[in-house]
Formats: sequence, C-alpha cells, structure tokens
Amino acid sequence: MKKSLLILSLFLMMGVLNAREHPSLMITKSGVEQIKKGLGRYPAFDATIADARSKADLALSSPIVVPVPKDGGGGPTHEKHKDNYYSMYYCGIMYQITGEKKYAIFVEKMLDEYLKLYPTLGYHPVKMSSNPGRLFWQTLNDYVWLVHTSVAYDCIYDFLPAAKRSEFNTKLFKPMAQFLMDGSDVNNKVFNRMHNHGTWACAAVGMIGYAMEDEELVQKALMGSDGSGKHGGYIQQLNELFSPDGYFTEGAYYQRYAIWPFVIFAQAINNNEPERNIFKYRDAILKKAVNTLMQMTYNGYFFTLNDALQKGFSAQELVFANNILYAADNSQKHLLSISRDYQSFFLPTDAGFAVARDIALGQAKQFVLKSQLLRDGSDGTQGGLAIFRSPNPSENTTFLMKATSHGLSHGHFDKLTISYYDDGYPVLVDYGSSRFLNIVVKYNGGYTPLNDKYSMSTIAHNTVTVDGKSHYGGDIRVSSNYAPVIYCYDISDPSIQVSSAYELNASPGVKMQRTNAVIENIGGERVILDIFKLTSDKEHTYDLPFFYNGDMISLSTPYTKATNQMSTFGEENGYQYLWKEAWAKPNDSKVCFTWLKGKRFYSVTSVTDSKSDLFFVRSGANDPEYYLRTDPAFIIRQNSAGNYTFLSALETHGKYDLIVEKTENAVSSVKSLEILEDNDSYTLVQIEVNGEKAKFRISYNLNSSAKKWTYIKY
Amino acid sequence: MKKSLLILSLFLMMGVLNAREHPSLMITKSGVEQIKKGLGRYPAFDATIADARSKADLALSSPIVVPVPKDGGGGPTHEKHKDNYYSMYYCGIMYQITGEKKYAIFVEKMLDEYLKLYPTLGYHPVKMSSNPGRLFWQTLNDYVWLVHTSVAYDCIYDFLPAAKRSEFNTKLFKPMAQFLMDGSDVNNKVFNRMHNHGTWACAAVGMIGYAMEDEELVQKALMGSDGSGKHGGYIQQLNELFSPDGYFTEGAYYQRYAIWPFVIFAQAINNNEPERNIFKYRDAILKKAVNTLMQMTYNGYFFTLNDALQKGFSAQELVFANNILYAADNSQKHLLSISRDYQSFFLPTDAGFAVARDIALGQAKQFVLKSQLLRDGSDGTQGGLAIFRSPNPSENTTFLMKATSHGLSHGHFDKLTISYYDDGYPVLVDYGSSRFLNIVVKYNGGYTPLNDKYSMSTIAHNTVTVDGKSHYGGDIRVSSNYAPVIYCYDISDPSIQVSSAYELNASPGVKMQRTNAVIENIGGERVILDIFKLTSDKEHTYDLPFFYNGDMISLSTPYTKATNQMSTFGEENGYQYLWKEAWAKPNDSKVCFTWLKGKRFYSVTSVTDSKSDLFFVRSGANDPEYYLRTDPAFIIRQNSAGNYTFLSALETHGKYDLIVEKTENAVSSVKSLEILEDNDSYTLVQIEVNGEKAKFRISYNLNSSAKKWTYIKY
Repeated sequence: MKKSLLILSLFLMMGVLNAREHPSLMITKSGVEQIKKGLGRYPAFDATIADARSKADLALSSPIVVPVPKDGGGGPTHEKHKDNYYSMYYCGIMYQITGEKKYAIFVEKMLDEYLKLYPTLGYHPVKMSSNPGRLFWQTLNDYVWLVHTSVAYDCIYDFLPAAKRSEFNTKLFKPMAQFLMDGSDVNNKVFNRMHNHGTWACAAVGMIGYAMEDEELVQKALMGSDGSGKHGGYIQQLNELFSPDGYFTEGAYYQRYAIWPFVIFAQAINNNEPERNIFKYRDAILKKAVNTLMQMTYNGYFFTLNDALQKGFSAQELVFANNILYAADNSQKHLLSISRDYQSFFLPTDAGFAVARDIALGQAKQFVLKSQLLRDGSDGTQGGLAIFRSPNPSENTTFLMKATSHGLSHGHFDKLTISYYDDGYPVLVDYGSSRFLNIVVKYNGGYTPLNDKYSMSTIAHNTVTVDGKSHYGGDIRVSSNYAPVIYCYDISDPSIQVSSAYELNASPGVKMQRTNAVIENIGGERVILDIFKLTSDKEHTYDLPFFYNGDMISLSTPYTKATNQMSTFGEENGYQYLWKEAWAKPNDSKVCFTWLKGKRFYSVTSVTDSKSDLFFVRSGANDPEYYLRTDPAFIIRQNSAGNYTFLSALETHGKYDLIVEKTENAVSSVKSLEILEDNDSYTLVQIEVNGEKAKFRISYNLNSSAKKWTYIKY
Repeated sequence: MKKSLLILSLFLMMGVLNAREHPSLMITKSGVEQIKKGLGRYPAFDATIADARSKADLALSSPIVVPVPKDGGGGPTHEKHKDNYYSMYYCGIMYQITGEKKYAIFVEKMLDEYLKLYPTLGYHPVKMSSNPGRLFWQTLNDYVWLVHTSVAYDCIYDFLPAAKRSEFNTKLFKPMAQFLMDGSDVNNKVFNRMHNHGTWACAAVGMIGYAMEDEELVQKALMGSDGSGKHGGYIQQLNELFSPDGYFTEGAYYQRYAIWPFVIFAQAINNNEPERNIFKYRDAILKKAVNTLMQMTYNGYFFTLNDALQKGFSAQELVFANNILYAADNSQKHLLSISRDYQSFFLPTDAGFAVARDIALGQAKQFVLKSQLLRDGSDGTQGGLAIFRSPNPSENTTFLMKATSHGLSHGHFDKLTISYYDDGYPVLVDYGSSRFLNIVVKYNGGYTPLNDKYSMSTIAHNTVTVDGKSHYGGDIRVSSNYAPVIYCYDISDPSIQVSSAYELNASPGVKMQRTNAVIENIGGERVILDIFKLTSDKEHTYDLPFFYNGDMISLSTPYTKATNQMSTFGEENGYQYLWKEAWAKPNDSKVCFTWLKGKRFYSVTSVTDSKSDLFFVRSGANDPEYYLRTDPAFIIRQNSAGNYTFLSALETHGKYDLIVEKTENAVSSVKSLEILEDNDSYTLVQIEVNGEKAKFRISYNLNSSAKKWTYIKY
C-alpha cells in the first residue's frame, strides 16, 4: 500500500497523466473491438446489446423533453431527467458499438437542451433536502445524472466538433461540476465527505473530468478540494469508507448503493490511468468490498439491517459491481454464477462482455455463503457483524448478530440485535426502513417521518430496550461516538458456532453483553442459545422483542388478547407505533412461544420469573398515513431488574406439509432451560432437548487469546 | 348415457361380475409387468419407485405400533394411524413390484395388530365430530384408512393363506365396512349421502369389497344401501355431485378432496369391471371434473372460494387425479405438463408409470387456462362461477365472479362475490377458511370457531352486505334452498368479457344484480367495470368491501386513521372480527383507492355521494386464540339507500421496479366515472381513462337470446 501511494504521489506531483483516448470511461476502443467480434457468439450478451439498442432506439423515436425541474422522487420531471440520462447513456454506447451517427446526434441534441436549461436553474423547487440539486431535489441525483451523462459524452466526444465540445465543457459540464463541488458550503462539504454521497460526487466530477480532459477536476475528485488527499476525495474514501473486511458502515443496503460510484469510477480510473492499479489499492479493497457485500445476503437478498428495502443481487448496482470486478480480476469465477443465477442483464460494456463470454465458456463456479465476522470501522475496531451459516448449505440457515458502529445517517439504534433466516424466509425479522421508494404520494418517495420515529427506534429491533428508551437516547450524535466490542467470534467447530459482544454506552449505567451459540444438533433440533446479560446497579425495565415472521401458533401460558378495543404499547420512543395485541404472565420458570412459517415451526423458549411480563404487539399504531407494515412481535419484559440475564433458546423444529397433509413435531422439544450460575465471571446455562442435555458456559473478562466458552453434552 | 345405464343394470340384475384377480385396485398384474420392464428407463419414475421403496423400508425398520385412538387431527395417535396406512400401502405395492416377501409380511403383521385392536374399539374418545369414527375422530379418516389399506390388502391377498384371509375378512374388514355403512343412523346417512364424505365411504367399502371378493359390499358401494341406485352409492354420486360442466358444488378446494375417492374407486372399478366403462360414464364426467378442477386455479393454486386453504396441483389428490385420468384417456397430453411442472412425484402404479413414461417420451402439451362459465347444480341450473382470463396468457390475469349455490357445509354466504388475480398474486382476495390443518393446538387442527363466525360471513367477502346481516341471515338451511341466476356470460369478444348474475333471496326485499365487464384496454389500462345494482323499496345500509392484497398507497379524499385506540367495525355478523382502522367521507362524486402489490399498482375508483362512508378495516379483532389472518379491506358504505347502484372501476396500472428504481404511472388514470342512466330496464355508465372515453350499458329483463350489453368507445 505504501508503495502504491508513493507512486501515486509521484504522478500527482509531476502532473503527468496519460493523454486521453475516447471512449475511456465504461468502454474502451479495444473493448468495443472485442464486443463487435463477439456479436452473434454469445446469445446472452447479444440480448444485452439488443436491449441497449432497443432502449436507444426508443429514445430516438421519442421527442426530446428536458423539463424545468419540479417534482420530488418518482414525480414526472424527476423521472424524465432520469430517463434522459439513461437515454443518453444507451445512445452513447450504441454509437460506439454500431458506429451509427444517429445515436451520437441524439446525445448531442439532448445535451443542447441541457445546455439551454442548466444555466437558468437555481436550487430545485422541492425543498425536502438539506442538500438540494438543480436538476433533482437532492444533489445526489444530480451526481448520478452526471456519471451517466459523462459516459455518453465520452462515447460521442470524438464525434463532436471541437467548438461544440468546448461549448459543452465550458457552459454545461464545468459549471455543473463546479456547482456540485463548490456551489454552496454544504455542496463542498458533501464533495469532500467520507460518505457515499461524497463518492457519487467524486465519481461524477472525476468522470466528467476524464471525459472533458480536465485534469483539475480529476485531481480534485481523487484527492479532494484541497488536493491533499487528506480532507476528501476518492482515494481517501477507499481508505476510510470500508473496514479491512470490506464492510461499509451503513450496512449492506447502502453498501450496494455506495459500491456503484466506487466501481464505476474505478473502471474509469483504470482505463485512463492503469498505472494507478486502482483495483489493487489497499490490498484490493474494492474486490473485498464487493465480495463482502455479496456475502451479506440471504437467498440473494441483502440483510435488512439499518435503513433497507428488499434488494439483492438483481439490483442494477450489483450488475455494475459484479461485471466490473470480474473484468478487473477474472479469477473470481463465483461472480459468474451470481450473474447467471440472479442478474437479468449484463453491462453493455467491456466488463459485461467478459462476464457473458466466460459464463458461456462454462467457467462459472458456485457462490458459497460463509460464516464470518465483518469488522466495522476503517481500522476494524468499531465492532462488527457476526454472520453464521449452517455448515450444511442445503439447510439454508443464517443467523446474525449486529454489533457494529452506528452507521451514519442510515444507522438504527439497535446495538446487539439479532436476525434469523431459515428455509427461504426471514424468521426473526429486522424491519429495515419505512420508505416507498419513488412513490410520490408516500412522502415524495423519500424516507417517511416514521422511519426516524419507529424504524430506527430500539423497540423496533430484536434487542433489549432499557426503561423504554432507545439506545443512546435515540441521538445519532451520541451514538456515533461509540461502538460495541466483539468479545468473541468462534467458528472453529461447525457444530457449535459462538459469538459474544458487549456494549457499555447505549443505555447509561447498563452493560449489555449478548452471547449466541448456534448449535446445529441437540436432541435432533437446531437450537440457538441467546444469553443477553444486563449488568446494572440500579433497577430497570428491560424489554426484549422477537419480531417473528409467520403465524402465531401457541404460547405455553394463558394469554389475553385485545378483543373490542386495542391500545398502543406505549407513548414514546417507538412504543407508540405498536399496538398492544395481547399480554400474559408466565406460569412456569420458562415460557415457550411457537410460530409457523412455511413448512417449519419455530419456538422461542425463555427463562422467566414472577417479574416477567409477556406481550404480543404489532406495528401500525399512530400511523395516519399508512407508512408502516403491520409486523408482529413477541416481547418479554423484565420489571424491576438490575443485573438480569435473558436466556432464550431459539429452536427450529417440525414439518408442516400441506401437500400430503402431514404435521410432525409441531411442539417445542426444549424440556428444560435454566441458568445454573450467573456472575461477573461467567454465565453457565443448561438445556435439555428430546432427552439430550448440554451445558454451555460463557466466561467474561478474559483476555483475547483465551477460550471464552465451553459446551458439553452429557 | 342411457345405453351404459342399461348395460350396468343388466350386469347388476344378473349378479354377474368378473372373477377377481389380485392385485386389481390401483395396480394390476399386467401393469406390474410393464413397471418392471420400464425400471431403469425413466429416471423420474425410478425416483418414484425408489421413494416408495424407501418409505416401505422405513416402515420395515420401525416397530409396528397400533395405538389405542386418542387424539384429534395432528395428534400422535391420529398421525400414527395415518402413518400406518401409508406404510401398508407402500409395502403392498413394493411387494408386487419387487416380489420380496418381507413387504407382504409387514402388511400382514400390521393387519394382525389391527385385527386385535379393532374389535375392542367403540367410538373415538375425541368428541368433536357429529360423525365419530373408531380409529379416528371422524369417520372420514376411517374411510381414508380403509381405502389405502384395501390397496395394500389387495397387493398381498394372494400371498396370504386362505385361513388368514378369511380371518381378516370376517373379523376386521367386514365389521369395519359394516360399521362405516351401518354402524349408526348417521353412518348410514353419510354412506348414502350425495357428499364427498359419502364418496369416501363408498370408495372404502367398494374397494375392500373388491379386495375381499365380497359382491355385496361392492353392490352397496355402487348402488347405495338399498341397491336401487336412487338413494345413494357411487353411481348416483357421479350423476349428482358434479354439474354438467364438472363443477362440484363445494368449490375447488373440496373438489380437490372429493375427486380423490372418485378417481381411486373409478380405477378399481375399471380394473375389476372394465365393461362398466366408468371413465366414460355420463359423458365422461370424471374427465370433465378433473379438467374443470384444474381450470379453477391461478399459478397452480386453487381459487380460495368457500372453505379453502392454499393448495393446488401439487396436492397429492391431484397426483392421483392427474395420473389416473391420464391413464384412462391418454389423449389428454396437457395432464403431462401439469405433472411435470407442478407435481413432485408419480403414483407408484400403472397410471403413474404411464404419465412418467409419456413425459419422458416428450408428449407433454401446454396447459391453457380459459375463460369459462362453470354452471353449478347437477342439472346446471344452480348459478355458476364466471371465470375470466386475459386473452394474452402472458398477462397472467384472472377475474372471478361467484354466483353458485351455497355449496353444502363448506359454503360461504357470499353471493355475487368477486376475486381478482394478476401478475402472480391474488389482488382482490377471498379469505378462504380459518383453519390450521392438522395443528393440534389450533382447535385440534379442525376448522376454528371463527370459520363459521367470520370466514363464512358476508362482510368477509367482496360483495354487498345489507343492513349488516349476512346473506340468508347466515343460515345454511335457508341458503341451500336458493341459487343466483346467471343472467349473462359473454366471452365472444376477447377485448371485453362480460358477466352478470342476480340474486333475489339473499337479503329479503332486496334484489342484487352484479355486472362485470373485463375491458382489456381502455386508455392503455386494463379496467374491470363493476356494476352492483341493488333494488329495494325500503331504505337500507349497503356495505361493499374490497379485500385488497398489498400496501395501501393512497385515497383520493382525506381520511382519519385510528391512532392510539382502535375499536371494532361492528358488533355482530362478522363485523366484530374487523378492526376499524380508518374512515373517511368522499369529497367528490367519486373516490379512488390505490394499492401496490409486487410490481403493479391497482386502483378502485367508485362513484360516491354525500350518503357514502368509506372505511379501512383489518381482520383479527375478537380473536382471542389467533385464529385469523390480519387481512385489510377498503369498504364503501351507502347509507339510507333503497335503489342504489355501486359503480366501480378496478384498474391495473403502472410499474414499480425496485431493480432499477423506476416508478411509472403510480396514479389512477380514470379521469371520470359516472352512471348516466339507471333504471329497471338498464344501467348506462361512462368512463374516461387517459383521454379515451367509453359507454357501457347493461340491459335487464331481456330474454336469454338477446344481447344484454353494449360497449362503445368514442
């Protein structure tokens, strides 16, 4: 790394950069030659080119409309400007591949319209963003416009007369780049920020810089406004925005989005300045980031931690990441199977061609999901995400414990939360975000107000809320200062995988430590032990929810359900968005809740006592605009507790087969569950499942090399 | 038909039946030879045989346990007796295919245990059924036990010493058959009843009759207890239980179940008395019934009308129906594609072999869903089910209007209800039934009490409830006396398909007529007009719900949603099971409600006035045991109305693409919707969609040959 930085610095000092060739952003002259030669040989890639052509032709046959910006996300002018950059992008590429001038002429004509419009624009009239753009309601969309348009412009650059280029450069693109970099204090801050919006800004400025051969723009994009590489720019983003494990602090959903400008700009840098070896930079951090992102999935969908909707491998960003990273290092044959199995298209570029060709040549290898700890923080010390997969892939099981840092503005207040996926479904669910992306009537397609108020709140997550307050008081400024500590992550024995993490600051005066042991087989069942230890010298109320997916089947103790009237679970901090659907007191030293999802039963068995209360809740209260889903949860509340340990066993059991109408093992097999000892040094628990007994012990306060846990069946 | 009846009668009078050969129920000597020859040639069928063998081998390696009956559906003894008949069935068949005596010995030994147990049994101890069995809580399961065991017994019949056969015949099977036929008044009634339980009873008695060569049992099974063929028996069931269109009055879900004994017994009859030509009987009514059943599906799942859960082509009954009907008439090549695409196994019998072989030979043809009217009633005069499919199969659209007779004990009070399916999902939903099949803790796996109270109630359906009362006062005895009239069903023009039906008796003093026009394209959208005309000389309150599937997106008028407190929508007749989630008054002469499911938007635009109220409700209130799903509905209420016509336009529009983050056309395009004229002779309505206007007129009181409707775009 030091060496490459040195080389980089030398180049920068010398002001020496390669002479530009066009196109050189997403496709190259030699790539176009290969694509042309390959046409007719790889039907899947032919389909991609046919699709690109049909999009370009549709653009050609439609009137050019460049409206004065008016709407927020999803509205007509918003969608039109999006359409326009895609139209230019496809026409630019089709010009290169076919050589037909009509495509280049289209791009030129549309740019003429933007040339007329752009200088007349002030800030966008929809005042929803703290960072308004000119073409769109937020600069973010302006960046994306410029990234795509740069590709188109690069493709037709040599087609344009020099005077026209000069006009576009000086009157449209340079002013746009300057607005995005320096149009306001906030624009300048975002441009230099270590954040995915900053990456988009740098990619946009850098790519138009390469396209219009403006070294200053490229320099600033790479090294920040002040050129130092220490206060902004793409290189610093590569250094800081990913952890050494390739984890992006906002979580998978935004890593998906963040990776897009990273890989596009990397492609442009690599084509223009191959000597930078950008794909090898920082131990090939981009390769790590893309592969880590692909690992943060279940059934091809990203984990819904932090702000997240249902997206996965099929998202267009992942096509970019997949294709570009494969072309950069074609030893990664598993990328081919992801493309083949989940993605419906290729990039119509050099990179897409390489992927399509090598799939056709039968080079794809299986993509294997692995248990792993993804450390958070640029130096890997800001907690992390513990991922567990079944050793037998056919079981298709994933368990997560999230002990990462806050995750910037898209982070949730959910320290030590867990999720569980099995047999194709989320089973213990993380809500993700409240947003109707691009649906104008739903808060202009942006995050709804309930995203902050409910989705981010602690009570919306499978972790402990103390005294009804979100972690860190729900204050991102406080939360951002701290991260949990990964105390233990051990997957050396596939039959029992263990993690433990603690958090000292989320709830003042309360230490939280959560230990999970994923036991593949005890008494014939998969059981995940969940030991949530709370240490405090004051009394508190602790609430531990399990947001389950499926049909409520049974509770082992009698319960009362709201009949004619239903009220909310609480008044504030997210509780007011939950309907209090049912409540109960335990009638035993443990309680068992069973639900059904698909073909399997799931049970949570938890140790209880006379100070425990049980609730069933459902989201959707105080939601006058129908922003929330109506998701159910089972909540265990421990009243008047100081030091207290929640011990639960999450069990996967039975079979529900509607095809032959057969039900097996619908009842939990956890016969006993006890905390035998619990103190500052360790917690020792015992479980009995179908006649098989085991003891599990987690020790605390050990140094990093000591073995933290023991597990004995007897 | 007359001719076959004549031949049948002759045989019966003569008491002449073929000499028995064994096996002759589900498989035959010659079939076994073919299967043996085919082994190793058709891998899919080899897998079926391997599966049957592994089930038989598992049985052999397990202890034989024949417990004293104790539990309801899903409980251990219930499931054990089910296991046992499957074990015998597979061992019997494996004995025939392999010739290995161990399989026959297993069946014999298990029958020995039943021989000991059965004579000791009285009625089953779980008192949940009005018709208790001995091995199971209801005789129905006893019938099914005997059907399967008959097959096993038939397979090992020649293996057993004559003395042993005689013992089984006289001490186990004959007493069992007699109990099922005559063990009580109710047993005798069910045996002779025109009902699917009666068919199971006849199949059980008839099949054991063939197996033990007892002509009396066969006769009674075919012709009823009194032998007349007029007061019960399988032949009369064939005459009466299906309409001329092959529709079974309880609806698709129970037609699935009913078809099972029909086809199994038909197979046994055909093998033993081929001269009956049972598969050709009544214009091949079994063929019609199976094909009609397969047409009552969406994406391979049955319509959820009346009592229904999520089942479809993959259900084991459908494997029986598919394989047996194909073997009976192998011109039906579409059955091969259903087997190949939806079913995971074949019958390990002659019929299953034929299907597997012909699929392997490439003979499968596509299964095509068609618009059709399925008349109800044995003579086809008891209303019917109107089914509409998009002319373009890739649209994957189905619209239903149900105007059938009550449908026996599994019928719902839902005259003129509608359902809509599109793009892979139910979009306007019929609840189906409240039942957790075979899950003991949920009301012993039977129909929950809320099935009668909510699922069957009118307000749970997409049709009009008058004055808050279910149709026919929710009284099946009254409802069973009447049926709606199909006034019009016209699919001659694929671009607009129309149905209309009326109902005179469901709500005293109110005539209901519902007319639907499925318009494939007006202004670029698919729009279904829904004209629900109510005629009464008194004032009433009319409630019309739309149970939608998806996310509530918008309502065109301001609404109030329950925030901190929520109460029920009403006090009785099903209303008490709905939470009143939100309410509104229309602010225009029409109201538009839009929701999103998957990748498409759906809108209901309805004409309203100052006497209209609007509600959003959700099921799940007054449900102390978590028996109900939490399904949402939009309800239009018309107050103080006598003659009143609900006019709605159900519109499918737009595109929601998360992959490329693109939203198109999220807002309804119905610009105007009006009733221009409405009287006893006709209703004339006008709609404008995206600038395209059309008038639709439905005329009333016309004779059957006249054209009932006109549609003009202008």
